[in-house]
Amino acid sequence: MQTRLTSIGDGRSLIHVAGQISREGDKVLTGRCPDQVSVDEATRRARLCALSVLSQIDAVAGLDSVLEIIQVIGFVLSAEGFGEQPKVMNGASDLLVEVLGAAGKHTRAALGTNALPFSATVEIATVAVVRSS
Amino acid sequence: MQTRLTSIGDGRSLIHVAGQISREGDKVLTGRCPDQVSVDEATRRARLCALSVLSQIDAVAGLDSVLEIIQVIGFVLSAEGFGEQPKVMNGASDLLVEVLGAAGKHTRAALGTNALPFSATVEIATVAVVRSS
Amino acid sequence: MQTRLTSIGDGRSLIHVAGQISREGDKVLTGRCPDQVSVDEATRRARLCALSVLSQIDAVAGLDSVLEIIQVIGFVLSAEGFGEQPKVMNGASDLLVEVLGAAGKHTRAALGTNALPFSATVEIATVAVVRSS
Repeated sequence: MQTRLTSIGDGRSLIHVAGQISREGDKVLTGRCPDQVSVDEATRRARLCALSVLSQIDAVAGLDSVLEIIQVIGFVLSAEGFGEQPKVMNGASDLLVEVLGAAGKHTRAALGTNALPFSATVEIATVAVVRSS
Repeated sequence: MQTRLTSIGDGRSLIHVAGQISREGDKVLTGRCPDQVSVDEATRRARLCALSVLSQIDAVAGLDSVLEIIQVIGFVLSAEGFGEQPKVMNGASDLLVEVLGAAGKHTRAALGTNALPFSATVEIATVAVVRSS
Repeated sequence: MQTRLTSIGDGRSLIHVAGQISREGDKVLTGRCPDQVSVDEATRRARLCALSVLSQIDAVAGLDSVLEIIQVIGFVLSAEGFGEQPKVMNGASDLLVEVLGAAGKHTRAALGTNALPFSATVEIATVAVVRSS
């Protein structure tokens, strides 16, 4: 499933969102940063992941109900020695704040890895809090 | 510690389960997918990780008390260019649903990496909700 | 942001702490384990990450308010075939227990990866519970 809602009292729920990989429509956006995909393009792909996160939250709870994004864990498909994952992940972080304002600010772990599903460039997992009543 | 219980009201607790690596009895099941370990065998190993998760939850709270598995984050020891982590992780996901039914459905992030403890093939971290009273 | 507080009732809050990379003062401690950085040195760097976690919690809630560390997810920049991430991560885990006692015990996932921000040796993400009133 794409989302799980867990009540934490006061009419609020945690929402865990499944890992969202970089896609454009039905097409997975693949390739390693920076030798196969530039930092700028990877950053754009992280932004697309964040849009998918918002889309998943909207489908189950409505974007208006978001009280705060708590945590974003982001993985960038990385060549060895690549260390600009924070810059790439800013694509996701900036989008969340553009759409949600202060509620979109979040804690983040930016990480690299040598392998992701379907060789996607970026994957992010997210936890947020929404109004549930 | 293997599990941490955190009350979230209404007689429920979050349970965080420590990373469970692929084992059979005392033996760690090692090797990279797909060049050292086939996708089918890695899938079986992911299933064993999920059994370990259930065993840890059972020891502290009893499987009957599981209300929902919230999140599974799974790492597959991966050769570069390998992208079938979702297929491998289905071994874990399917087991959770077989044992727990609807309560076993969960959000998931399937990830690859170049290195895991003791060169285990799979490691998964899990968050669930259990009845605590 | 470095921390997010989320009320879970009974005067308690979850606190998510952003990924803390290995640093000493302003300097990022970089390099892969074990070919560029020894296991002992990486372990010391994991300890420094845990100090950063405590510093972040202290800044927002005070260390006295920590009720329990719930989850530590730790990534060690790893050469292929390296599998001593648990030993490295003990640097972080032991520090948390030294400072916080029983409250510092936690569930943990120790993981390896081929790439981390700025080529830091260690990065850890943490979830804890603090008294919020």
